[in-house]
Formats: sequence, C-alpha cells, structure tokens
Amino acid sequence: MKIGTYSYEEYLHLIKSFHGNPAPGLIIGGFMVDEALRRLPDGEFFDAICETYVCLPDAVQILTPCTIGNGWLKIFDYGRFALSLYEKYSGEGVRVYLDPAKLERWPEIQGWFLKLKPKASQDSQKLVDQIKEAGKDILSYHKVRIQPELLHKKKLGAVGVCPSCGEAYPLRDGKVCRPCLGESPYIKEDL
Amino acid sequence: MKIGTYSYEEYLHLIKSFHGNPAPGLIIGGFMVDEALRRLPDGEFFDAICETYVCLPDAVQILTPCTIGNGWLKIFDYGRFALSLYEKYSGEGVRVYLDPAKLERWPEIQGWFLKLKPKASQDSQKLVDQIKEAGKDILSYHKVRIQPELLHKKKLGAVGVCPSCGEAYPLRDGKVCRPCLGESPYIKEDL
Repeated sequence: MKIGTYSYEEYLHLIKSFHGNPAPGLIIGGFMVDEALRRLPDGEFFDAICETYVCLPDAVQILTPCTIGNGWLKIFDYGRFALSLYEKYSGEGVRVYLDPAKLERWPEIQGWFLKLKPKASQDSQKLVDQIKEAGKDILSYHKVRIQPELLHKKKLGAVGVCPSCGEAYPLRDGKVCRPCLGESPYIKEDL
Repeated sequence: MKIGTYSYEEYLHLIKSFHGNPAPGLIIGGFMVDEALRRLPDGEFFDAICETYVCLPDAVQILTPCTIGNGWLKIFDYGRFALSLYEKYSGEGVRVYLDPAKLERWPEIQGWFLKLKPKASQDSQKLVDQIKEAGKDILSYHKVRIQPELLHKKKLGAVGVCPSCGEAYPLRDGKVCRPCLGESPYIKEDL
C-alpha cells in the first residue's frame, strides 16, 4: 500500500508533522491524491484544485509540488471533499471525490463524513481502521477540463507604496491599498 | 543566523523541497516568520494570517504548525507582503512586513520588491546575497489585535448529499451545492 512515493506509515508520520494530527480527512486525502496522480494525463507539469479548505489542501501540499505559496494549488470554498490535478497548459485532468454512494459498507466513515452521529460517539480507532481498509474503494473519478481563465496566473502587476500605510501594494487596487480602505482583519493596527 | 529552528542553509533546502525553488520572497518570509515568533505574546497556541497568496503562506507552513488544511493559517488577498502570528484565543499578536522605507540601502531588494526594473535585468545572485545580508533589517513590526469574528473557526455545519451531483456538501449552501449552481472551475465535468 503506497501513498504517493510513501508507505502508509510514512505518510501518517508526514501528516502528523505537517498538519499536527492524523486527521481522518487527511488520510483519505492521501489516497485521493495518490489516485489522481495515477490517472494524470501526459504532461510534464500539473496544477491542483481543492474544493474545500478542510484537510485536502495539506494532502496536496505534502504529496505534490503544488503549494498555496507557489500558486500551483488553488482552493475553492465549496465544502465538497474533492480535488483535481490537471496538466497546467491544456487544463485537462482528473477529479477525485469521496463518494457518499460508496459508503454503505463503511458505516464508521459514513457516520463521520455525513455527520450522522455526534463526534463524541464516533469510534476514532475504528474510523481510521476502516479508512485504511477501504483505501481507494470509497472514491470516484472523472475527467475534467479547467476553465481557461484559471490556467493563467493572475499577475499582481505594478507595485506602489500606499500613501496611507507606507507599505507596498498592487496599484491595480486603487490609490490606497485594500486594508487602508477598511478591509483589515485587525481591530486596530497600532495598540 | 537562525530561521526558526533551522540554519539558513537548512531553511534553503526546506523551501526548495516544499516550494520548488528558493524564491526571494520565501527567503525573506523565513526572516519574517522568525521575527514574528520571537515577538509572540505569551500563550500556548497561535494562529497565522498572511496578507498575500505569494510565497509567504509557504514560509508560515514550513516554519510553524499553521497550515491551510488545518485552519490555523488564513490568507487575505491584499497583495501586501505582511504576516501576523497571534494568540488564538485573545487575538493578540504581532504583525511583520517588508518595509519599503528600509530598502534604500538594498537596491537589489528594492528593485525586485517594487518592480523598479524588469526581471531580465535583475541580478538574482546579488538579490539573494542582499536578502541574506539584510536579514531582519528590512522588516518592521507592530502589535495587532485580530477581529473577534476571525478567532472562531467557521463550522461547516450539517452535511447533505446534493441531489444534483450526488456529492456531500454543507447544507447551509442551499438545496444543491455551489458548483451545481454554476460556480464550477471546470468547463464540463464529464468529458
């Protein structure tokens, strides 16, 4: 049993180190990335899409060259447990998802994934055992083609110094940077 | 010279392995995370914010326990080269940014960061040398307090099976999932 180029146990170590804990979704994510890699069309370079922020982006970042910071991984906040790998120029690729229709045989996975019972009454060891045993059997696949406008990196363009905060920002955003227009995640920047 | 718990050379190896190349922004990002870690308020757990998708999220993911997939790293697409680490319950923390006002002494960094000259005429070895020599001298800091609504993880809530695509999705999104309402990154899902 391989996950990418790693053994199952090696992958568990990697996700504990990177993600902090061996989350069930990240173990399944490992099988998903592995299956997507096996089904990739020809081509030297590929990019990735995750359809949720939960767990899956870390499986992609651990097992492929695609990361958030290098721009090869994009995340859409759809809350669907799905990911795609695609050839970066043609946009042709494969999409893998955890298929609810394939969970009848795996009641622990079904209960966890569809939130059929409260977390406190889930058996986490049984859940991980079923995930390992099920492997790719709970996944479905199809080919995809990515929207052309997503194939090109958005360039930040010219840079200016914001006259309000004095920091560098993309001039396309206007005469001051977006946080100076009020979008800040901070209550007050100087305490 | 340390970056987190690593030597400068070890950090360069890590970013090549994770990010694919020793991008100038990611080297600077290492110094930024290191300085933020030194200035953290007391507290056992902290979360992170990046104010750009470019490079910085990978510095945070390599050097801290915060990742996109575990929810401890949030990214805002402001195009500002800044990051914050903050105590996850109080929201008190420190913000670090690359300060354009401190670049006069470092013309190669200034030219690259403010895009003052085309990429082809930049001297990439000189740029990396200046980044290493400058270290934290090109950074500025201030204390921050995070908006309270950002301190709590958004729960996905109840899960349903979308009657249109058959996949699991958060019921808060409505009667079908968002991609089935037309938000898909794919041209056509079944080829």
